[in-house]
Parts: sequence; C-alpha cells; structure tokens
Amino acid sequence: MIINLARRAHNHNWELDPITRSLLDTDFYKLLMLQFIWKHFPATSASFSLINRSTEVRLADLIDPGELREQLDNARTLRFHKSELIWLAGNTFYGRQGIFEPAFLQWLDRDFQLSEYELTTTRDGQLSLRFHGLWTATTLWEIYALSAVSELRTRAALKRLSELELDILYARAKARLWEKMDRLRGVPGLRVSDFGTRRRHSFLWQEYVVKAMSDTLGASFRGTSNTYLAYQHDLEAIGTNAHELPMALAALASTDEQRRAAQYRLLELWQQTYHGELLILLPDTFGTTQFLRGAPDWVADWTGQRADSKDPYVAGDEYITWLQQRGRDPRQKLFIASDSLDVDQILGLHAWFSGRLLNGATPADFRSAADFLDTQKWLPEPRIRFSAGWGTLLTNDFRNCNPQGDGGFNPLSLVCKLNEVDGRPAVKLSDNFNKSLGPPEEIERYRGVFGLEGIAGAPVIT
Amino acid sequence: MIINLARRAHNHNWELDPITRSLLDTDFYKLLMLQFIWKHFPATSASFSLINRSTEVRLADLIDPGELREQLDNARTLRFHKSELIWLAGNTFYGRQGIFEPAFLQWLDRDFQLSEYELTTTRDGQLSLRFHGLWTATTLWEIYALSAVSELRTRAALKRLSELELDILYARAKARLWEKMDRLRGVPGLRVSDFGTRRRHSFLWQEYVVKAMSDTLGASFRGTSNTYLAYQHDLEAIGTNAHELPMALAALASTDEQRRAAQYRLLELWQQTYHGELLILLPDTFGTTQFLRGAPDWVADWTGQRADSKDPYVAGDEYITWLQQRGRDPRQKLFIASDSLDVDQILGLHAWFSGRLLNGATPADFRSAADFLDTQKWLPEPRIRFSAGWGTLLTNDFRNCNPQGDGGFNPLSLVCKLNEVDGRPAVKLSDNFNKSLGPPEEIERYRGVFGLEGIAGAPVIT
Repeated sequence: MIINLARRAHNHNWELDPITRSLLDTDFYKLLMLQFIWKHFPATSASFSLINRSTEVRLADLIDPGELREQLDNARTLRFHKSELIWLAGNTFYGRQGIFEPAFLQWLDRDFQLSEYELTTTRDGQLSLRFHGLWTATTLWEIYALSAVSELRTRAALKRLSELELDILYARAKARLWEKMDRLRGVPGLRVSDFGTRRRHSFLWQEYVVKAMSDTLGASFRGTSNTYLAYQHDLEAIGTNAHELPMALAALASTDEQRRAAQYRLLELWQQTYHGELLILLPDTFGTTQFLRGAPDWVADWTGQRADSKDPYVAGDEYITWLQQRGRDPRQKLFIASDSLDVDQILGLHAWFSGRLLNGATPADFRSAADFLDTQKWLPEPRIRFSAGWGTLLTNDFRNCNPQGDGGFNPLSLVCKLNEVDGRPAVKLSDNFNKSLGPPEEIERYRGVFGLEGIAGAPVIT
Repeated sequence: MIINLARRAHNHNWELDPITRSLLDTDFYKLLMLQFIWKHFPATSASFSLINRSTEVRLADLIDPGELREQLDNARTLRFHKSELIWLAGNTFYGRQGIFEPAFLQWLDRDFQLSEYELTTTRDGQLSLRFHGLWTATTLWEIYALSAVSELRTRAALKRLSELELDILYARAKARLWEKMDRLRGVPGLRVSDFGTRRRHSFLWQEYVVKAMSDTLGASFRGTSNTYLAYQHDLEAIGTNAHELPMALAALASTDEQRRAAQYRLLELWQQTYHGELLILLPDTFGTTQFLRGAPDWVADWTGQRADSKDPYVAGDEYITWLQQRGRDPRQKLFIASDSLDVDQILGLHAWFSGRLLNGATPADFRSAADFLDTQKWLPEPRIRFSAGWGTLLTNDFRNCNPQGDGGFNPLSLVCKLNEVDGRPAVKLSDNFNKSLGPPEEIERYRGVFGLEGIAGAPVIT
C-alpha cells in the first residue's frame, strides 16, 4: 500500500476545514436581495440575531464560543474570488444573463465587508449572536451564521463517536437518503430543489446530497439554493427573496397605511430592479389572506408564489382560487412549498396540484413513482405548476442514525432574523399565530393593521 | 488538498488485489484437518469439486473463466510466510500452544503445494471446477475456490454500479450490519463466531464485519474461523473439523460394518492426534440419530457437538437427552449451531438453550438484549453452553442492498465437496434427505447401512 506521508502528517495535525469556504456558500436569494438592498437602501442599517427555537438543546454547552468566533472571524476575512464574480456576471440565472449589475459586482469586489458581531452566552445555556451595521453588511450573515452554528454542533457530536460509529452514522444517513431518492425517482412531472443550506448537517454532506439528487432525479431536480454548489457543480441556482424585505419596508413605514402598502411597494421595487424577472410572491409575512385580498391587480401577473408558513395544501388552493378570481390561468403559474417538507409531503402535494385523483385516492396514497404511473389512481392534469423546496429534512435528516442512540444529530430549529431597521423594530406575523417574530407590543400593533384572517392557531374570541 | 500522485496513477492502472492474500485466508479447521491428513493419510488421493446449488444463477455468464484461472493460479504460487508459520507454532489455540507439530509446520514450509485444477464451463452456464491429487494437496482448495468464485461474482456485479450506487450499496449493508450488532449487543451470556469465509461478499467486507463484531460485541464475540483474520487482528481462530473426514474414512472402508464403524474410528484418530483437545462432534454426516445411538460410551466425553443440517432446536434437545442418558451433565458441554443462521435464530436458540422461558414466552419473543434482561420473560439457567457459528448471512447479507434493485449481490449456495478418495466415491447423507451428496447408487447403499431415522424430508413408505 502506498502511503501519502504528507497527508498523514496533515491529518495528524489537522484543523478541520472552515465551514464557510466561499462567500458564495449562501442562499442565492441572499445575493439577489443584497443587490436590491445595495441599490435601494445603501445607507439603511439593520440588525439580525440568531435564535434557537429548540430551547431544550443548550447550544452554548455543546459549542465552544471560541470555535464559533474562529468560524465567524474566518468568514469576515473572505472575499469574493475573481472567478466567482465572473461567474455571477456571466452565468444564466432563471434563463437570463446579467442579473447582477456590473456596478454591484464591482462593489462586491471592492467594498463588501461583513459587519462585526456580538457573541455572548446566556444564563439558560443559549448563544446570543447579534449582527448590526449597514443592512448591506449584515444581511449575508444570516446563512453563514446558521450554517456555522449548525455544523459546529454536528462536529461536537461527531467527536463523541468511534471510527466504526462514524462509519455507521453516515451509512445509515446514506441508506435513508437513497430510500428518499428511490421514492421520488421516475415520478412524472415532479420538481424538487435543495433549500437546505441553513440547517445542513455539514457542507460536505449537503454537497453529497445535492450530487446524489442530481445523479438520480434527472430533470425532476431543479437545482439548489446554494450558490456555491450551483457554481461548483453546474447546477441551477434557485431562490428569489425572503421575509426580510417586506419586514424592513414595513418597519420603515411611518403610518399604518404606509405599513399596509409596504408589502406591495416592495413588489414594485423588486420588479423594477429585476426587469420583470424573478417574480415569486412570498405573501405570508403579515398573513397571506389579507395580502391576496388587498393586492393590486398587477400582483396577479407575478410568476408564482412561495408558501412558507401556511398548510401548503390550503395555501395552494387559496392561490389558485385567487388567480381565477383575478382572471389569470393558474396552470401558467408556479406554486412553491418550502416549509418542513419531506418525501411524504412532497409526493402528496405533487399529486394534489399536478393531477386529478381518481377513485377516492388521497394525497397520502402517493408513496412512489408507481402510484403516479397507476392510471387507476391519478391522471396528470396540472392545476398549477408545483415545485418543492426541500430543506432541513433533505440536508440534515440524521434522526435515529446515531449509533449511540441519542438525538445529538437531530436537526435544530435555528433561525437568524431581522430585528431592527434604522432603529425601528421589525415584525413578522406569518400564517401561523405562534410563529410571529418581534417585540410583543409591535406584534400587537401589526395585528391591528393586518388582521388575523386565515391565520392558523389564532385565539378564538367569543 | 494534497494529492498522492503515485496512488492516483496506481488506481488508474489498477489491478484488484488478489482474492486469496495469504494461505492463512482459510477456515482454521482446514489447517487442523490438513495436519490430521498429513499425519494419517499422506499417500491418499482425494478429489473435490465445486457445486453451485443456486442453479438459477448462470455463474459462467457472470464470471470470466480467465479471471478465475488467474485467481486460482495466483493461489498456487502462494507459500506460507515465515511469520505465519511462527504464529501457527507459537500462538495459543483453544487454550493450548503447540497444536501444530514442528514436523508439520516444516512440511507446510517446504513441501506444501496446492494441486492442479480443471476448469471448464458447462452447457447450462455453470462452472465445472475440479481438484484432484494427494488429499494433502487438494483439501485446502475448498475455501480458496469458494471465496474466489464468490468474490469474482461480487466484483462482476460491482462493475455495473456507478460511484454513487456503490456508495449506497455499502451504506445499506453497513446500516444492516449495525442493526444486527445492535440487537446482539448486551445479550447476557451470548456466544457468536464468524463462520463466513467461504461465501463472503469479499475479503475486505469480511474483515470489516469481523472488526465491527469485535468492536461492538465484547466478550460475546468468540472469534473467527478465518485464520488470516485471527492472525491479523489478534482474534481467536475457531473451528475443529468437517464432514470431509468421516466421508473419507467411510469411503475407504471395505465392508458395511467398517463403514458404520468409520464414523467412530475417525473420532479415535482425532483425539489421539490432538491429545484430547478440539473434541467437537459433527454427527450429521450419515445421520445424527444413528450416530448418537451407536456411539461408544467414550464419545459422550467429547466437549461438544456442532449441528449443521438438522433443525438446531431439535438437534440440541436430542444431544441433551443423549448426554443425560449417558450420564453426562449437558451444562458442561458445548452445542454449536452453524447452518444458515441469522440474528433471529441466534437469539432464539440462545434463549432456548441458555435459560428458562417464563410466562409462555417463545424463542421468537427474544429480539434483543432488552428481552433477555426482562425478568418476566426469561431466567438464565443454561441447559447446555450454546454457541452460534454465523456464516453467509453475516459476511454476505446484501439482500435488497443493490440500488439497481436486482439480486446481483444475493448470496449463492456454493459448496466445494469431496468426490472421491483413492478412487472410491464419497457420500454424505446429512440430517436432511435432500442435502445428500454422492452418486445416487452409493447414496442408496449408504442409506441401507445407516438408515433414515431422524432424517428430515425422507419419503414416507406406507
């Protein structure tokens, strides 16, 4: 056997790879939003903070704050490579070249700098991580911070396993991934994308998963939200915008009337910025039902909608009905689900929106390609173009894979959210009463402005 | 990333490792039997042939006879290394040093040579592989031939898979192996050995499996029948003798009376040879029931019994009853099952022989350590010392692991059996009517001598 002495010595002295290998290792929509912010809000400040919703996991006990600092400091030293900027300039995104303006790319090259951060640990064992500064300097932190915390927690759990246990951990995760691919493979008309960067097990695992999807699902695999993986593996970069934008615009509004109008004002600015491309609505920031009801007619011309906090069966049907009321053909539109998806729901939603279920079949009856090829169960007859944005349960499904039996690799519910814009508190209501974000008195005020129609889990007033 | 240029070039020009890496890569009992043959039958000739009982698999279509020749020719060039002979001389086997005589080891060093072979393909797509010559030159072929054919068939199937599919194949097999280890781990009093050399998936996989067992099962893992793995990994080498010996002695007998006596004559010779060690009966060659009934009293002094073709629950109970009739304490004896075992049967047999089942529990209720620790189900109260010799379903359980979905990695039922001794046909009846081996007229003759008592599947004469 030939031994690579240099590699052995390196492995012996190893430091693990940095978690963020490139500034492209972020969701593509963050780059689209950054250009939008750079263009329209270059002097606006914005702060973000990391929140661990899985409060039963004491993150600060698992992750050494010193190691997290190292990772965050390392991210701050990164610059966009020339080759990456050339790719952003020359590559085709959503069928169009030149999505990024030369002046923006020049700014990325010369002036982009991640803000500083504040990291402390709290008395209940959590990490408190905040970013403040210019919005253009804080917005990209979201994904770098989430993926760093998620992977450091993975690394801490990996350290407790023996070599055999590590091998079994990944064997189980790969076997599970293959079962998922096997169920999706060959399903006619299916569209799936990777949306799993922020809560991934690790960078290398996400890369493995994305390559496996690309190898097995053929045209059903639409791409990845991870810009770096899209760049490295010639895949489509997927994603358009997030709640951060309507939250900021609403926070900057001076009156309730302006606040209500902000959710549509954003859309106007966005379509100007992107010349009528990348038009995916994200209507749940302050409640989908009020959003659709109050929308100007031109909003129905947008290409599609992403549902993120409402039951996607309900959200899709609501969107279809609204499009019909507005005189648009839903079959020309795109409906994207992106909240906590896994195979069962992806197949069920695909059946629900892409075909006519026969003989009393229900979405739950669709378990694999065979069910979609069974003409007794289903006729392809698209009601709307459906696409699944598959996140955490694609890139971090290690449930019951740990040979030591504990939940050390179960995914955490980590988020990194906008707190303030120019000193004003940011609020998200969402389609789920319990998922609202912001100071309680501000949430109350926003509820007064936007109402509770169509919000799940809202208290019933008798 | 540091690249090992030499390794890359080597991998590019690769030839796969030889399947038989060392003459020690054989079952330990073959070496014990070789010494026995060398001592008592140095001038006896014996022929062996390989039989594929899985006739639906056309081996000659899967395996290139040229590649098989290369492997067999390579095995013929192998010699015992000095270090291996020193280990055979100096190591302790079954608690005793010096099991192998200096003169035998000298003969292994200077004069041992595998016989020539004849390889042809048959019209029904099978390989016909025969070995003839001195018994001392043919006997070791059994394991080298079986493991070579088994691994070449594996390699042929591996060639059809993509890199991802290969990764998934092994991920699934490892995940399954772990489930098996997990069920056995912590079961009080359990004894399990690897008996899987002959029909293994590959050498490297057997090595992986044996190391995993050794790492996870602690004292419950008793060792491996593979001498090379025992040597390389400081494990116990397990095994004593096989059907080949009583078959040969019976074939050499001149009268039916001598033939009946041969099965006990062998035991006398064996205990002389090994000075009263390694005394494990293998009573099923011509039927266990007649063997036990006709055995001289001193046979009951042997340490234990291995059951290979009778339902092991029945065989163990029969042995216990027989020992009691002969006035021996079964709790001092060892009962080894070695026929087609997998986890369910290992746990069931362990419960049956090592404890008292309570409250209507059955062997099938014992699924993992928890069941053995449940005092409502079981009280440890050994009826006999039970040990499991785990073969094909330990080292070659790739059923449903192939990502391409076909049975290309399912284990084959390959055997390599003694045909003739000094020109006389060899016969095995076994405890199963349908598992007899030999020319039909000879089988008939043997049945006349040994009877059919206790033989499963025998035709009922009305």
